[in-house]
This record gives sequence, C-alpha cells and structure tokens, in this order.
Amino acid sequence: MAPKYVLIGAGSVSFTRGLVADILRTGKELELGLVDIDPQALRFAEGLVRKMVAAKGAPVRVAASLDRRDLLPGAHAVVCTVGVGGRRAWERDIAIPRKHGIYQPVGDTAMPGGLSRALRMVPAMVAVAEDVLELCPDALFFNYGNPMTAVCRAIRKATGANVVGLCHGVPGVAQYLAQFIGVPLGELRYTAVGLNHLTWFTEFRHKGHDAWPLVRAELARRLGTEPDRILAKLAGIGEGPNLPQGLDNPFSWHLFALYGAFPAVLDRHAIEFFPQLTPGGAYYGKTLGVDVFSMEAVIEGGDRRYEQMREIALSPDPLPADYLGSSGGEHEQVVSIIDSIDTDAGRVYSANLPNRGQVANLPPEAVLESPAVADASGMRALMLGGLPSGLAATLVSRIAVVETIVDAALQGSRDLFVQALIAEGSVSSLTMARQLADDLLAAHAENLPQFAGKARRG
Amino acid sequence: MAPKYVLIGAGSVSFTRGLVADILRTGKELELGLVDIDPQALRFAEGLVRKMVAAKGAPVRVAASLDRRDLLPGAHAVVCTVGVGGRRAWERDIAIPRKHGIYQPVGDTAMPGGLSRALRMVPAMVAVAEDVLELCPDALFFNYGNPMTAVCRAIRKATGANVVGLCHGVPGVAQYLAQFIGVPLGELRYTAVGLNHLTWFTEFRHKGHDAWPLVRAELARRLGTEPDRILAKLAGIGEGPNLPQGLDNPFSWHLFALYGAFPAVLDRHAIEFFPQLTPGGAYYGKTLGVDVFSMEAVIEGGDRRYEQMREIALSPDPLPADYLGSSGGEHEQVVSIIDSIDTDAGRVYSANLPNRGQVANLPPEAVLESPAVADASGMRALMLGGLPSGLAATLVSRIAVVETIVDAALQGSRDLFVQALIAEGSVSSLTMARQLADDLLAAHAENLPQFAGKARRG
Amino acid sequence: MAPKYVLIGAGSVSFTRGLVADILRTGKELELGLVDIDPQALRFAEGLVRKMVAAKGAPVRVAASLDRRDLLPGAHAVVCTVGVGGRRAWERDIAIPRKHGIYQPVGDTAMPGGLSRALRMVPAMVAVAEDVLELCPDALFFNYGNPMTAVCRAIRKATGANVVGLCHGVPGVAQYLAQFIGVPLGELRYTAVGLNHLTWFTEFRHKGHDAWPLVRAELARRLGTEPDRILAKLAGIGEGPNLPQGLDNPFSWHLFALYGAFPAVLDRHAIEFFPQLTPGGAYYGKTLGVDVFSMEAVIEGGDRRYEQMREIALSPDPLPADYLGSSGGEHEQVVSIIDSIDTDAGRVYSANLPNRGQVANLPPEAVLESPAVADASGMRALMLGGLPSGLAATLVSRIAVVETIVDAALQGSRDLFVQALIAEGSVSSLTMARQLADDLLAAHAENLPQFAGKARRG
Amino acid sequence: MAPKYVLIGAGSVSFTRGLVADILRTGKELELGLVDIDPQALRFAEGLVRKMVAAKGAPVRVAASLDRRDLLPGAHAVVCTVGVGGRRAWERDIAIPRKHGIYQPVGDTAMPGGLSRALRMVPAMVAVAEDVLELCPDALFFNYGNPMTAVCRAIRKATGANVVGLCHGVPGVAQYLAQFIGVPLGELRYTAVGLNHLTWFTEFRHKGHDAWPLVRAELARRLGTEPDRILAKLAGIGEGPNLPQGLDNPFSWHLFALYGAFPAVLDRHAIEFFPQLTPGGAYYGKTLGVDVFSMEAVIEGGDRRYEQMREIALSPDPLPADYLGSSGGEHEQVVSIIDSIDTDAGRVYSANLPNRGQVANLPPEAVLESPAVADASGMRALMLGGLPSGLAATLVSRIAVVETIVDAALQGSRDLFVQALIAEGSVSSLTMARQLADDLLAAHAENLPQFAGKARRG
Repeated sequence: MAPKYVLIGAGSVSFTRGLVADILRTGKELELGLVDIDPQALRFAEGLVRKMVAAKGAPVRVAASLDRRDLLPGAHAVVCTVGVGGRRAWERDIAIPRKHGIYQPVGDTAMPGGLSRALRMVPAMVAVAEDVLELCPDALFFNYGNPMTAVCRAIRKATGANVVGLCHGVPGVAQYLAQFIGVPLGELRYTAVGLNHLTWFTEFRHKGHDAWPLVRAELARRLGTEPDRILAKLAGIGEGPNLPQGLDNPFSWHLFALYGAFPAVLDRHAIEFFPQLTPGGAYYGKTLGVDVFSMEAVIEGGDRRYEQMREIALSPDPLPADYLGSSGGEHEQVVSIIDSIDTDAGRVYSANLPNRGQVANLPPEAVLESPAVADASGMRALMLGGLPSGLAATLVSRIAVVETIVDAALQGSRDLFVQALIAEGSVSSLTMARQLADDLLAAHAENLPQFAGKARRG
Repeated sequence: MAPKYVLIGAGSVSFTRGLVADILRTGKELELGLVDIDPQALRFAEGLVRKMVAAKGAPVRVAASLDRRDLLPGAHAVVCTVGVGGRRAWERDIAIPRKHGIYQPVGDTAMPGGLSRALRMVPAMVAVAEDVLELCPDALFFNYGNPMTAVCRAIRKATGANVVGLCHGVPGVAQYLAQFIGVPLGELRYTAVGLNHLTWFTEFRHKGHDAWPLVRAELARRLGTEPDRILAKLAGIGEGPNLPQGLDNPFSWHLFALYGAFPAVLDRHAIEFFPQLTPGGAYYGKTLGVDVFSMEAVIEGGDRRYEQMREIALSPDPLPADYLGSSGGEHEQVVSIIDSIDTDAGRVYSANLPNRGQVANLPPEAVLESPAVADASGMRALMLGGLPSGLAATLVSRIAVVETIVDAALQGSRDLFVQALIAEGSVSSLTMARQLADDLLAAHAENLPQFAGKARRG
Repeated sequence: MAPKYVLIGAGSVSFTRGLVADILRTGKELELGLVDIDPQALRFAEGLVRKMVAAKGAPVRVAASLDRRDLLPGAHAVVCTVGVGGRRAWERDIAIPRKHGIYQPVGDTAMPGGLSRALRMVPAMVAVAEDVLELCPDALFFNYGNPMTAVCRAIRKATGANVVGLCHGVPGVAQYLAQFIGVPLGELRYTAVGLNHLTWFTEFRHKGHDAWPLVRAELARRLGTEPDRILAKLAGIGEGPNLPQGLDNPFSWHLFALYGAFPAVLDRHAIEFFPQLTPGGAYYGKTLGVDVFSMEAVIEGGDRRYEQMREIALSPDPLPADYLGSSGGEHEQVVSIIDSIDTDAGRVYSANLPNRGQVANLPPEAVLESPAVADASGMRALMLGGLPSGLAATLVSRIAVVETIVDAALQGSRDLFVQALIAEGSVSSLTMARQLADDLLAAHAENLPQFAGKARRG
Repeated sequence: MAPKYVLIGAGSVSFTRGLVADILRTGKELELGLVDIDPQALRFAEGLVRKMVAAKGAPVRVAASLDRRDLLPGAHAVVCTVGVGGRRAWERDIAIPRKHGIYQPVGDTAMPGGLSRALRMVPAMVAVAEDVLELCPDALFFNYGNPMTAVCRAIRKATGANVVGLCHGVPGVAQYLAQFIGVPLGELRYTAVGLNHLTWFTEFRHKGHDAWPLVRAELARRLGTEPDRILAKLAGIGEGPNLPQGLDNPFSWHLFALYGAFPAVLDRHAIEFFPQLTPGGAYYGKTLGVDVFSMEAVIEGGDRRYEQMREIALSPDPLPADYLGSSGGEHEQVVSIIDSIDTDAGRVYSANLPNRGQVANLPPEAVLESPAVADASGMRALMLGGLPSGLAATLVSRIAVVETIVDAALQGSRDLFVQALIAEGSVSSLTMARQLADDLLAAHAENLPQFAGKARRG
C-alpha cells in the first residue's frame, strides 16, 4: 500500500506548492491528504495540487478534507503548516504593539507579536497532536508552524507527542555563508545550535579546516579594514543611516564579530531576540517593520501570491512551467528527511527537538534547533557539549520567555501572558505590559478559546 | 583553645562594629582576627574593636594584620566583607553608566554597575578562597561581599571552596511584611527563594495558614480599593509622580500583585533586575539614584559614618553607649549560624548556595538564596521543587548574566563583558555596550589586573 | 469541622491499635475512617478502635467501610497499611524460593519474596492512589505498606500522587545506637540515607561532635580487641556458628566496620540486600528464616496477635490497661508528622521521597529514605550531596531492581519479572529465574490481575 | 609536516602489527612513534614495524623510545594499548580468585580479575593522560587498554583528558549477526549501547526494516522449535552439558530471547557481567576458564604469538606475505576514525564516551559504549533516549562497581577494593571479599604503587 502523507494547513499554498513539487520529484507512489479548516483555501490548494499531479503524470492519489480526522488514520507522515488566523491576525500582532511604540520586523516568533501568535497557535496545534496520537500514533509528525519553539514545546508538554520542528533557516544561512566566501556548499560542514530563528553557527569548516578565518578575511575586505579591526569598524556603523556598502545584515555581522558565531536567520529574524537593542524599532537609522523589513510589504506579497495561485488553481489553463521545479524555501527538508528515515540513510539535518543533554548548559526539555541524525530510529540529536556562557545567555533568557508563554497559552492565563511580556523585554513599564496584553487578547479573542470566560483580575 | 574568627575586609567598619557587637553578646571566649589591605582602615577598625572588647570586658583576643595569611591558619570561621576599591570605585560604577543614560539606584549587584563591581571583586575573592583552602580548609567560610551571586559562583567555579553567601535582606523583608500585617515575626514562616537581592517570598504563613490573604487585604485597604482590583489600582499609579499615599515600595507591591510572590529586597534592589522597565531611570516620575534612592546620599552617608567611627576609634573617650547594642543589619545572621552549626541545632536560615536540585527549574550550580538548615553537617538547602514559569523567567535570565560576567572576570575577557552587558539589557545598542565596557574597564584599571596587557580586539 | 483521618488496611490490627493510641493521646477532636476489604478483619478493627475511643472518652468519631471511596471524600490524611494477601500470601513468598534453595529472613522488601510481594502490592496501591487523587487530592497521603520503595515509586510513576513513605526503622536504629553507647537519644543527631530497610547512618553526632569514635570504642570493647583491629576480629566471625558474645547483629557491625556507616534496619533486613553473601541462606552457621529470624515464628506470632485482638475486640470485657499506652513500632511517626505539618513546626523526620537531587549520585526519581522537614509546605527533603562510591553501589543496584519490578508489576510482564530476579541476584541460573518466576506467578495468581490472560512466551 | 601517531604499549605486537598494516594501507606520509617501557618488547616491535614499512616502501618515518615524553610532543594522535604487568600479571588475576572458588573466562574487564587489573591500569593510564595533556593537549587520544570502562572513567575523573575508548567488539558482533542471518553487513544498521564487553544491540535493521524477526526465525530453525518457544527450548539447555547443536554462544542467545537485545561480545565476555548465574564457574556443564574458554590456552597463545613475532622481527628473512594484509581485530577502527575526523566525513562508530545524556536512565559521566559521529568536531555521541528498565539494570549495577574500583585505584584504598568486590557479586562472604582483596594486592604489589605504605586497617 502506498504510504500516506497528510498536510495540515494545506491552504498555505506557497508551502503546499513547494512541498508537492518536492514530493513529485521523488517519483514515489503515495497518497496525499490535504487538510485545511478554510473551505476556500482548501479548494484552491486541492485544485493546484491536482493540476501539479496531473502535469507530472505522477502516481499520487490526492484527497482533501476540512476535517483532519478523516485523513489522519493510516498516515505515514503528518506535516503541519498551520497559521491560525492567517495574515489578518498577523497584521494585528504587528499593529497593536506599534501603538505602544514597539516595532518589529517579522512577528512570527519573538517580541510581543510572536508571543501573541503563540497564544492562538498552541491550542490549535495541541489539538492536532492529540488527534495524531489517537489516530496515527506511529506517524512521523513534523511542524513548520511558528512560533516553532513554543509550538513544539507546548505539544510535547501537553501531549508528549514526538513532534519534530523543521525550518529552512539553517540550511539557507549555510548557503548564504558559502556564497559569502565563494565556496561550494557541499565542501562545508557546520554545527548550528540554538532556538529556531536564533540558531548560532558555532562551527563552520571547509574540508575539515576552520572556515571562520576565511569568513573574517572576506568581511574585513568588504568593510575595507583589517580582520582585527572589524568590531571597531562595525561599531561605527549603527550610529545612523550609514549602512556599510557591500554588506547586508550588519547586525548579524556585528554579532558574529562579537560572539565568534553567526546567527541564523540573519538580521530580520535575529534582531527580534535582542529587543533591548532596538528601542523604538531603531535599525541603522530606519524603523523595523516600517521602512526596513516592511511588514506591509510582506503581508501584501502574501496576499498577492495567494491570489495568483488561486487563479492558477481555478483556471482551465495548464500549469506554468516553473511550478514543478525546485523552489527552495520552507518545505525543503521534509521530503529528504522522510526518505532518510525510510531508507535508514542516517543523514544529518537541522531539527527542533527537546534538550535531553545535547547542549549541557541549556535547560532540559527546551526545544532546541541543532543537528540530528535521521534514520529508521527516527531523529536523534548529536551531543554538542556546552555553549560559551555569553552565547548561552542569548538563548536561556528566550527559553524562559517561551516556557512562560507556553504556560500562558495552555492555561489561558492573562497574568502569565503579562509576565511573558515583561520577561521578553520590549515593554517599558509594568503598566504597558498589562495594557498591551489586554489589547492583544481583545483583538484575537475569536482565536483564543482558552481565555474565554476567564474573569479579569484587577 | 578558643576558636578563631577571621574577618576579612574589617575596614568596613559598620559591618565590623555590628558583627563584633553580636559576638560580644554571646559571651564566648574567642580569638578575633581583623584583616584589611588598607592600613588606615585596619587601624581604625582595630581601635574600635579593642574599645568594644574592653568596654564589655569580654574574653576575646584581638589580632590585626594587613596580610590575611598571617591570621587564617587555625581559623574556625572566615567572614568576608570585602569591597574592592571602596566607595570611590562604587561612585564610578554609577557615574559612568549615567553618561550613557543608564541610571540605577544601588549598583552593587545588577545592571552595569553591578557587573563592573563583579569584575574587580571576583579576582580578589578567588584569591581569598585559595588562601582559605590552603591555610584553613576546614574553616566555615562566609561571604557578605557583593555582587553576592557572582562572587560566590566565581569562588566555587574557580576553586571549589564551599563558600556560603549571607545577606540580611530576606529576614529584613520578613520583618517588613510582618509589620505590614501587624503580626509578630515569630508567628510567621516563609519560603523565600531566588537570587540575592531578588529573592521571592513564594510562601508566607501565619500559624500554619496562608498569610497572603492578610497581606492582600491590607494592601487593598491602603490603596482604598477591593482586593480583586489591586492590579488595576497599582497600574494607574506608575503613570507619573503620583505615588500612593501610605504605600512605600510600589514596584514591589506591583510585582506581588502580578506574580503572587513578594520580592526581597524591596524596590531599591528589586527594580535593578528589571532594567527594561526603567528606561532613563524612570521610577514613578523620579529618576533612580538621583532624586530617589540617591546614590550621592548613600555614598556621603558611608563616608560620614566612616569618619565618625574613625574619630571614636582614635579618641581617648569611652565608647558611646549604643555601640554594644544589637544594631541589626548585614551582619546579623552569621553569629547565629555559626552557633547553630557548632551546637548541631539545625535552625533554618536564608543562605546563598549552589543549586543541586533544590529548585528544579533553575540551572544547576547557579548560586541561589533559599532556606538552608545549619547543623554540624554544615548548611544544607531544602528541596523546594520547581517555580512557576513566570517567576523562574525573572531569575534565569539574570543567572545567565551572572555566568557570563563571572567568566568575563575569571578570564579577563572584554568580549564577555560586552556580552554580559548586552544580556543584562540596560544598554540600547551594540555600540553602546562596547563603549560602556571600555569606559568601565579604563576607569577601574588599577583593580582589574586580569585585564591588564590584554590586546584590545577591534 | 474536625479533620478526618482515613486508615486503609485497618485490618492490620497491630498497626491500627498503635496508631489509634497515638491519635488518642493527642486529645484532638477528629473523625477516623477505617477501611479494609476483609469484612472480618474490619469488624475486629472497628470493635477494637471503638473500645479504645470509649475507654479514653475521646472526641473521636469512628466510621468503617469495606469501600474506601465511601470514606475518602474530605479526608485530611490518608494512612495506608495494606498487605495484599496477608500472611497467607507472605508464607508463599518465602516457601517457594526455598524450594529453589533461596532462604530469606523477612521477604517483605528484597530478594525474590520482596519482588513477589511488589507484584501484588503495586496494582492495589496504584488503585488507592487513583482514588485519593480523585476524591481527596489535597489530603496528606502516607504509605506504610511494603515493599516501601517499590510501592511509592509505582504510585508516583503511574499516578503522580505525592505519597510519602514512612517506616519506624531509622528512628528505631537510632535508639539502638544510642543504647549501644549509653547516651540519651535526645542528645544525638544523625543523617540516615538510603532505601527503606537499607538506610545508612552516614553521620552520627553527640552534641555536635562525631559520635562514631564512641561507637567504635564500644564495639572494640565488646569484641575484646583494639578499635583498629575490629575488621580483622569480625572477619574471623562468620566462618561458622561462633557468633560473638555480647554482640548482636554481627553482619551490620561488619558492614559498619567496612563502610564506615551503619545500616538500618539491622541484620534481619539489611542482609536481604546482599544476597550474594548468603548462599543457601548461610548466616553465621545458621540458615536465614529457618533457625535464625524464623519466618515460621514471625507468621505464627502475627496470627496469634491477630487472634488476641479479635478476642479483645469482640469480648464484652473492658480493654486491657496497656492498650492505650505508647507502643512504639511502625505507626510511631505519622501522628507527629501530621502535627508538624498542621502547626508548621518544621521538625525533621525520616521519610521516603523521590530523589530530585538530595543525593547527587543516586538516580533521579528513585524513592529514597532520608531526612525531610515537615511543615505547612509538606515534606521537603534536605540536600545531602553525594555518597561515597562504595556505599552508593550498595543502593544503585537495588534501585535498578526496584525500577524493573515496578515496570513488571505495572505492565504485568513476566519477562520483566524474570529480569528483575536476575538483577536481584539470588537465582543462580537463567533457567532458575524463569522457573521461580512461573512458580510465584502461579501461586499468587488470584492477587495478580495484571498478569491474567497474558500469553506465556516460550 | 607529516602528522605523527604515537603508539603507547607498542610491545603488544599483535595489536601493533594490525594497526601498522592498517596505517600502511592508507598510503599516507606520517611519523610513527613507538613507546613501551619494556626494552625487549620495544625492540621487537620496532624491528617488526621497520620491516613492514620497508616491505611496503611506505613514506612512514619510525621512531621508538622507552620514554613516551620523548615522542608525545607534536603528536596528532596517541593510541594506547597498555597492559600493565602483561600476561604474567593476567595469570595471577585468574589464578588467585580460583583459589576462592571463583572461575572466570577472560578477566580483563569484570569479576575479581577485572577489578584487580583496574587497580594497576588506572595509575599507569592516568600518568599517560597527564603527559598527553601537558605535551600534546590537542592530540586525538585513544585507549584500547582494558578494563576499558574503568580506565576511561579514571582518566576523565582524575585528569579531565578527552580520551576515547575503542574496541572491535561491537563491529565484530555485528558481523556475527550478519552471518547468522546470511545478509551482507553493509545492508545492516544497528544501535549498540552499554558498557564495553556488555554492549546491547537494541536495534538491528535490514534496509530500514526491523531485522530481529529474521534473527528469531533463524534461531528457532537452529533450535528446531517455533519462534515463540525459543525461551522454553533454551531454558532446557542450561541444565547440563547438553549444548545445542548448531548454536554457539547459548548464554548470549538466552539473553537475547529474554531481553529482546543481543549482547556484545558474546558468551565469553558477556557472562562475566552475570557472576550470580555461574556459581563455581558453571557453564553448561563445564567450568569457565578451565575446560571452556580456557585461560591457559589464551595465555599460551599469546606467548606463542609473541615468540613468533620476535623471531620475525629479528630474523634477516623478508616479512611473511600475510603481514601486510588486513587482519581484523582490536585495532581495526582507529585508522578509519582518525580519517573521518581529519576529513570531516562524519561517519558513525562505536566509541566509549562519558554519558552526558545520550542514555537518559544511566548515570551521568559513566563511560558508555554507543554510536558516535566522528568529524572535525571530534567524536560526538548520538542521543539515544532511555533503555528498558531490565536492560538498564544489567548495566547500572556494573557502573556502580566501576565507580567504586576507580576510586579504590585512584585513592589506593583497600576498603574500597573490598567494597567493589562485594558489589561485583562473585564473593560469597564479607570475609572472602577481604581475603581475596588482600591476596590480589599482595600478588600485584609491584604494580600497585598507590597502595604502598598504606597502613592495613584491621
């Protein structure tokens, strides 16, 4: 019998399109179950996928349902790309903190927007996990939904389900660094460890030799300085709008120069883990999410792509040629990982798994993104030892925030949400923390069933 | 043979005076060794102590030396109250961050002033610990010097010496809460756990019953509101200079209302652990360390008391009557603890000890302030289980800062100092972190031997 | 309202009598619920208790039920003294291993008899715990049933209930040691840590000073040798029936001489933890359970006492005078502990609690017997640090056996039972392990519902 | 510059010959340093190696020294195959326990012979480690000497050196199992975890599918029974000398049938971890080390091979043809591992490394043999989760013995040696433990400097 893959949140059509293209390239016979709670989005996704299957003439049987419980039984793999509330909710996660003077460039993971997103993602994904445990307990269970760390931690804490979180950030930044020094990716090996969206490349090697000196030399060249003057040169940047010529992601490079490790996933994501360093959204003379990393542009782009795919799905025309090519992006690890598990190949991937000792000085059970071997035993992290204390400090404070927001989301506790906002550090007073929490809870009430009916305290 | 107590840092005459008064009240025969590296301060302290002993006619033999190695051999107890650089260095710890817009009310523990103090305290106290291990390895070894958590952690990390950190903060705040509800301290029991100067009263009982409802009722009465409206009432306060009538320490009460636990040691200390909530030193319409908790007043008061004691020590006049009374303050636990150990009495004290499981969700080896039994086995912490995630979050991020500054201090690493400043959260840019670090290192160079000769990077 | 104590297994009349005598001496008003599944035994117990209450004229209201669910709601404390299968099952636990050449002196904790007892106790006590969690989740929950370590571990592993295991062994041996050196118990303090029935006195002090030299001197005196020749003298013993004059418990003293720590609860219990050292039941020329520590005598004594109490319970005569006196024995800690909790007194007791760091080099979650403070927060163990490796070795192998038999009991797994027997070490071949397991399972089938219907493997 | 490998204990000529053959096959240019404290053995080894190099015409420069400190500076890899006291000491490790009725088949790892060997290996290997840390701290550091677990643990405990223990047992048994089911080794993948010489194959897969059913079917076929009757069939075996036809290693197969996991390294080694199951050396009607796994034959074979190689080394004749072929055996992993590290290849090997979480329910820091990735970061274990409690029980009791003997060896403590013997379980009385310890210490006194001059207790 052909194995069945179930895709939950299939209405995220960009992801679905990329994942299905990857699947089709394997040439394998399989069943593909598409699930979304939004009937329209599901219809578009199904249309698009059927067109792709047909164009390829692939031995893939497609099913679609609004109810995941229809399709989960018998699943070999469950892949989740859920985004509760969609782009409309995302907009509110950004807009409401702005009223309190808090500007952020992404809002899917960290800072108040990320915390707000966690509150609505957690109950939804815990419910998915409970269904997986009941209906297909042996299925491989992958999550792509954000905030990754909080979602995976909440699922494990509430249900014990063995969910594996995946993100293309680390391989993407490996490619970025490879290009930076002009070396083929295949010749590089690295260790990247941390939290999803703040994963530190602590080791980076070219043919077995430390490649950081190559990186440092190239960085010095672009900055027009000596390698041992990089920090001083970078410090001068930052003062105002004078972004360095020929150097994107200056914040990430500054972190690299200071910590000796490079952050995935570059400035747009990494900077959200350092809210103390961007008061009022300050980023090299610009404002985060406004005139740099514009949130409006991101949302509009998402809406536009969704419209395009809707048209393609519904049109009688054949599929554009590029729809079956490899598109890169979020989906890109999961098909390869399933293959590595099925064939016992033992390849190494970047995965989000609970800490059971792989990093000695990060808290047990925290969901860490680090190298893991994929074979028929599943995904098993590599023991990495401890991190230098300064690097660890960038992570442990964030893990504490995640633990607090997970408890807030699971318990429906406004006080814990306020405490998470205080620990997160973007708010500038106890009163602001409380008001911001109230504003976000009110704006998202429809997606926060766990808070409904809770008496307000004080 | 009479037991010998050695007091290192005896030139801290306030502490010395209180400790000696406590010792004299026990009536025990003993030797008292006074050590200070400042010849003048040592002379004054010795004079004062000899006067006290004479006035009491106590069987105490006094010795003094500039070199602790003269007096440590044979010691039964070593009590340290060292403050490297004294008030002159303390002033710089406050003044230099102010130039960068960072205002703090104490500067002996947290925020940039506390980190700076750690850099000079750590090598000095590690050297003391090495001497204790060599010359009197079985002696009870107590530290009162700040920053308590960093000093104790560094001593243990670098030498393994079994140092116990003591502070009068927790018993002092227990007395404060007892007065708040008008109940004798002796009828109360409590659990207070955290980091020195941010120790949370998580349990507070009157005759075996939860006493928080009494506290909440009294708080509501003072605020003129209902107990279930306390948070809302307090939130209204922080807007400006309108401090509530009849309620001191509003920040601590706000924390209590939000977290359900009360922070020792009240606003002046606790607020330094939340730098994100006091931008520009903002504290209810005032500025921390300037027009509230004035650092200038603290320093002047210290200088003045020192002068008074100097005069008394050197004058031919008899001792003022109050010098032999119980004065309360920093020293107040240690004589009682030594007695509890010597007599195997098993009384419980608040002590700073490494985490070996007493708090399940705080990092191992972090130095925690929590209840410990003192008997002939030494001081052994009580197992407390885990803290709620929101409370834990207030501590783990601070523990990570401590770990980083301890490494910076032990290694003489400017980069780690910068990383500690970033993790601490008072600085508002990477560049500011670096400049502040440079300014502090330059200002304290004479007391930072471990940084001498290090090449500057960048 | 008067607090309610529920006694489960009240048909253990010796225990019930002692516990009720203790309760009556407090003079407190309370409800006492008696539960047993054996109607006869319950009737006798109820009769006896009512007579005791009446004789004392105490304000205690007595209720009795065959169904604990009738009496648990509202309970303040639940005390369990269950022995599934009673003395008839116990006899089989001893007799069946004897057929395989395995002789043991108690059979309630260790060696094959103890493992067999665990299999029937675990499901019964897990069911009790589930009822406690459902019907009186805030009640204090104490267990006296054996095997203590396995019962408490199984309850916690299967239900998470916060059960505290109590045993009079440690205080009893403290009294034994006090008498040995002729010092009042009140002047002694000690640390005893290990597994119930193999709890090592690692520290023993008289008025704050190490009391082991006193013990060693007295031991040497009794052996007629020098303190530094004790081991050699004891080694000579053991060869045959030449037990030393004036020295009972020679095995325990030998352990003391070798390990520097004294084992509770003396030879009869401690020797069961060293099956390798008593092949064929060899004990100083006698056979364990046969002509020394006769199991037959123990069983007969139990039967006889039960008969006596039955007569007293049913007779119209008044209660014998001694029935209200303090009788010492198993029950003796629990009334005092409940009082220490209710009054927040903070006294220290020996209690069986899961390891969360109190002993650094024993496994996490293993149920250890060690000092714990009893106050309104419940019972909290003291941090003790690590044990010397040789002492730890006597315990960790036994903890591994407990973990295996607990899993065998929870899962109804014959293979795990066999594996537990192998790890325990009394069996002398793989085949014997299997046959002994089969024999014990068959003999106790009526009390082993979890094994019913399991297909036999092989 | 060519990398330098230093071989300490080069007089173990079998190992040296195999290792050098492996090295020569790589064709790499390198320096090879040979060290032995026995001048004769070193001379033979050097002669043999020079002949091998010459015969191959390899670009390998050979040096030899009696003092490792001559050759360690600049080493890239240090490989130790030390056996303190050689075969003459090994004979005594076997003969002395036999006088007490204890028979064992190997004596290099477990049972009293293994403990005795640990006492003399530990100080020697700790001294080697100290030299490595001083003279070539960045060298890869491998140990092949037994007892592996105790040697590696002692080195790490005493010096912190990052020693990696290697043994050909696990790959050898993988090959054994592959042949058993007639499948090429290359198609199999497995997880083997435990202690060196009792490493459990917990997972065994053929092309991604569980291969245990294949193993079970073949086992049933050989036993002439059904797969679900294997245990019963095997149980019948141990009764007497009736070893099954066509089935070697019956004890290992019995363990497999009972535990569901297969033990490396087969009966000869595995049975030493279960001394309770071989009273008087009983093994299927024979006596361990005497008429099965004859120790005399092993020793004689070693002596004979040594003589042969001596002749070849000293003779003017050319090398026999087979001396440059791949010989299999102990040495076989290390050249491949060094290559995997040097080329960053990331291959997986079985290695002995300290437990930092890779097996959740085995003690931290215990040296475990389990899969580890070898790349330019060094060797990093894979996270494996927890073992079933029955399997864990076979290991934790042995780890406790190792910890005790390591402390005995490091401290020179006779009491700890006695305690280790008791925990090990082969002795049958406290007195025997003491006498056996004394006999072994006396017999090996020349190689036990740490016990010299210690006052005897008792």
